[in-house]
Amino acid sequence: MRDEVFCAQYQRAIELLGSRWTGVIIRAQLGGVHRFSDLKAAIPGISDRMLAERLRELEAEGISRRVVVPEMPVRIEYHLTDKGRDLSAVLDAVVHWLETWSDAAPAPLIQRS
Amino acid sequence: MRDEVFCAQYQRAIELLGSRWTGVIIRAQLGGVHRFSDLKAAIPGISDRMLAERLRELEAEGISRRVVVPEMPVRIEYHLTDKGRDLSAVLDAVVHWLETWSDAAPAPLIQRS
Repeated sequence: MRDEVFCAQYQRAIELLGSRWTGVIIRAQLGGVHRFSDLKAAIPGISDRMLAERLRELEAEGISRRVVVPEMPVRIEYHLTDKGRDLSAVLDAVVHWLETWSDAAPAPLIQRS
Repeated sequence: MRDEVFCAQYQRAIELLGSRWTGVIIRAQLGGVHRFSDLKAAIPGISDRMLAERLRELEAEGISRRVVVPEMPVRIEYHLTDKGRDLSAVLDAVVHWLETWSDAAPAPLIQRS
């Protein structure tokens, strides 16, 4: 029974990560990009609507959260939670796999910006 | 330029892994399930059509391959390639993340903050 629950969660997690843009958004946040406009600039091809939708999904999953920085004018940022930051191991494993198996990959260094 | 190619490959890889069923099919193959009917039985809810389509996609990506076992009657099996088996690190990282962060998962052995 618990195995079935776990299996469903596994599938849900891997599908979430594989949703279009989700992996690259998390990678950008891991790399220190936190503002909506900076995220958009860092991810070629993403639309405002899609970025907003993905950030909402990540917030609903407890992976990212919206932070209001009390300045004048107020600044909104999107930061990974601890749960979200912990995904770096998953994304690093994807990068490592690509570096091993892809011809076009850069020389295998651990490349996180 | 090479970074852009790599970024596109990264996104493609993570979307492939996140395609519905793909992660669970690979996990079943890693666990020693290789025949179509056994894969279908191991993955509750998947249809024949979807399983066949996913196996074709994985073959096109060089992750899985169709093996003809010369017996009477001939047996068809689906085995991971070296590239495919190497994905175990990615899938293990997903499982580890779930174990750490999911309530329904078994008790986390390693508590990372």
